[in-house]
Amino acid sequence: MRISVHDARHPDSIGKQAIIRGWVRTRRDSKGGFSFIEVNDGSSLGGLQVIADATLANYESEVKKLTTGSSVTIAGEIKPSGGKGQATELLASSVEVHGWADAEAYPLQKKQHSLEKLREWAHLRPRTNTFGAVARLRNCISRSIHNFFQEDGFLYVNTPIITASDCEGAGAMFRVTTLDLEKLPKVDGKVDNSQDFFQKPAYLTVSGQLEGEIFACALGKIYTFGPTFRAENSNTSRHLAEFWMVEPEVAFNDLDDNMTLAERFLKRMFSDALSQCGEDLKFFNEHVDTTTIATLEKLATSEFRRISYTEAISILETCGEKFDYPVSWGCDLQSEHERYLTEKKFDGPVILYDYPRSLKPFYMRVNDDGKTVRAMDVLVPKVGEIIGGSQREERLEVIEGRMAEQHLNPADYWWYLDLRRFGTVPHAGFGLGLERAVQFISGMANIRDVIPFPRTPGSAEF
Amino acid sequence: MRISVHDARHPDSIGKQAIIRGWVRTRRDSKGGFSFIEVNDGSSLGGLQVIADATLANYESEVKKLTTGSSVTIAGEIKPSGGKGQATELLASSVEVHGWADAEAYPLQKKQHSLEKLREWAHLRPRTNTFGAVARLRNCISRSIHNFFQEDGFLYVNTPIITASDCEGAGAMFRVTTLDLEKLPKVDGKVDNSQDFFQKPAYLTVSGQLEGEIFACALGKIYTFGPTFRAENSNTSRHLAEFWMVEPEVAFNDLDDNMTLAERFLKRMFSDALSQCGEDLKFFNEHVDTTTIATLEKLATSEFRRISYTEAISILETCGEKFDYPVSWGCDLQSEHERYLTEKKFDGPVILYDYPRSLKPFYMRVNDDGKTVRAMDVLVPKVGEIIGGSQREERLEVIEGRMAEQHLNPADYWWYLDLRRFGTVPHAGFGLGLERAVQFISGMANIRDVIPFPRTPGSAEF
Repeated sequence: MRISVHDARHPDSIGKQAIIRGWVRTRRDSKGGFSFIEVNDGSSLGGLQVIADATLANYESEVKKLTTGSSVTIAGEIKPSGGKGQATELLASSVEVHGWADAEAYPLQKKQHSLEKLREWAHLRPRTNTFGAVARLRNCISRSIHNFFQEDGFLYVNTPIITASDCEGAGAMFRVTTLDLEKLPKVDGKVDNSQDFFQKPAYLTVSGQLEGEIFACALGKIYTFGPTFRAENSNTSRHLAEFWMVEPEVAFNDLDDNMTLAERFLKRMFSDALSQCGEDLKFFNEHVDTTTIATLEKLATSEFRRISYTEAISILETCGEKFDYPVSWGCDLQSEHERYLTEKKFDGPVILYDYPRSLKPFYMRVNDDGKTVRAMDVLVPKVGEIIGGSQREERLEVIEGRMAEQHLNPADYWWYLDLRRFGTVPHAGFGLGLERAVQFISGMANIRDVIPFPRTPGSAEF
Repeated sequence: MRISVHDARHPDSIGKQAIIRGWVRTRRDSKGGFSFIEVNDGSSLGGLQVIADATLANYESEVKKLTTGSSVTIAGEIKPSGGKGQATELLASSVEVHGWADAEAYPLQKKQHSLEKLREWAHLRPRTNTFGAVARLRNCISRSIHNFFQEDGFLYVNTPIITASDCEGAGAMFRVTTLDLEKLPKVDGKVDNSQDFFQKPAYLTVSGQLEGEIFACALGKIYTFGPTFRAENSNTSRHLAEFWMVEPEVAFNDLDDNMTLAERFLKRMFSDALSQCGEDLKFFNEHVDTTTIATLEKLATSEFRRISYTEAISILETCGEKFDYPVSWGCDLQSEHERYLTEKKFDGPVILYDYPRSLKPFYMRVNDDGKTVRAMDVLVPKVGEIIGGSQREERLEVIEGRMAEQHLNPADYWWYLDLRRFGTVPHAGFGLGLERAVQFISGMANIRDVIPFPRTPGSAEF
């Protein structure tokens, strides 16, 4: 019976005849006339130890030539193992080799490679322990996201990737075109955009929020989960040109409901990672960041403090800490301020809310004080902001005023304003970047290492 | 307690004090001094009947002015209902109005609008019965897809959307650029692509398959599920420029395994739709296509016939049916041929396999006959092909030969070829377009009506 390495490692498998298929991680030959082969198939971090002895027909001709990266099908009986860190091992009755990996040519030899080097080999790095663990963790978090919202009755909505609404001002956008750049059609000396595929300029989305609001204002509770794009020329360990974002949006929710949802959501994600990805988290805890598991366990259970922006400013002004950027009411908080609050002051997750209206986009709901809007940021230790969201402005006249304030043209937003014209409702939502979450949970230092094929300035290989 | 309309309609809710929030679908006033208000919140197709009587403080001033599309919060007690098609109704103790919908201005009045007209109002159409049902069905199918693969130990992998590998020849591609089209930088009279964001031309992906193979050849069983793009100028009821595709890829699977996986996958999707989306499917069955439910029930249980391309050609040549396109070995099958096989000849799902090599891409595994490759298409009644896939060519020399045959440059595929150089394994996978599946399951005639915001030539609004 074909079984996974994950299942073969479980004591329940002892005594079974099994066929496993995977890749050789290591082989060492014992003097006693047999070899130990560690085989991994991606189903778990740990591999299965295979005992291949000299009686195998192809022992000398093939088994003893197996090197790291070779692919094999091995049949045999699963036995209890005396080796440490493993409950079982496979006593091989046959070893079939599918593909060799020439030790001279194959880049992934036993020696450790730098993460930078492995980025050049993005087609091979999933075969390493670190990137296998990242892939399983990323899968676990994505599953947790879907399960959380599905169990709560949210509808998964696919908002558009290509959009002609250059609306949101959330960041620089990529243009999408079928025009031949070597032979651009022109009218009156300008590019004739009417000949482009969409008959006008179109871009890659920076957020599905505005379209998400359409569905929330029709069907109640929805979430998006898909790729979003930023064309900023940022070469940092926290920025990607292409990343995945999850954005729930809920009709009739106010900002308090939104905070409660964000807290429940994050806790579920952290506890799912702990309960379903234990072996991989242990690996990160040992090799990447020794505080990973303790941090997650704490966050999964601690209460998220809710502090208004105004209170936060007064804490920061009077705390006596030296900051590179001075703090006063009306300023944007820097990473150092956020980290002070979540790491030093409260030593736990913090939700900041009610930010100055001048700092925030037109769609956030204006408070009665006229000075602040119903924005919120969820801050966690080590990374600072992990979620940003708001209650949306549902009052037509107020949002029109805010658009005028920010010199936006209401005609560009006719459909967004219609949501306020016809059966408007209070509603709220937030956004979480998947890669930031994977980065936080794994402790991986560079965001390029938590997405299969990172897109950054100058880099779109694979 | 705030509950959904879905829950409020269930007999278990009878006797409960409840708060529901949603939008008015209809209001009619009885002569006896009360009004019936049907409220929908997206949680189910059916709305909740609310009895609002004249003793409500705002009965004359507000309740009697409620029109279709207005948003309300209503508190009261859930009672058994004598009305047909409903087990419960809500006796209102208070009605709060959040937003009005001026009957003169609000486009969605009681009268039926054409689907074409509703596409212009894509921001309002989710508020209709049809598009609410589509949204819930689409959500159900997406959930079913994730659950099927997750329960089977597949890893969800996000392959890149932007790619500089213009590799696959699967179709016309959109270019992604940050160059200012009005002021293109030039060298030697040509566009200087080195100044573009990725320092070379980049495109929107047409398929995640090749990158998916990278992960399957490292971690065993994976699937992608994300947006893909085609820049073809196709204005048909079956084509979108942006659509969602699911693509599983499995190491060590051969074509038979691949067919088995595809069959299990489709059956799960159909049976989940039947068991979890019954009310919405009933709506489609009544209003859209009266064969919908019967077709699904049949497909969820019937065996998928497996017929080689060669057998199919001989059936078509001898069946006596008149086709617009003549049939002979080596020709591409047309929709009329596929539909004859699945609808008339076998009256059920059919998997065709082993197509002529000349018809298929370089990456499909060549059979020992040298003439055919291990391709497969799953055909279902009404739509024809719903899944296409293949066993991949894992032999380095063979795939290099195939690339030469098709005038492809191996240097463009260095990483893809590395998968065959180092620990190569037999592997196979397939692709399913989400919208085609939703179209098939719902019976909706036009693919633009099963995606929230369709992108087609000339159209990227919202």
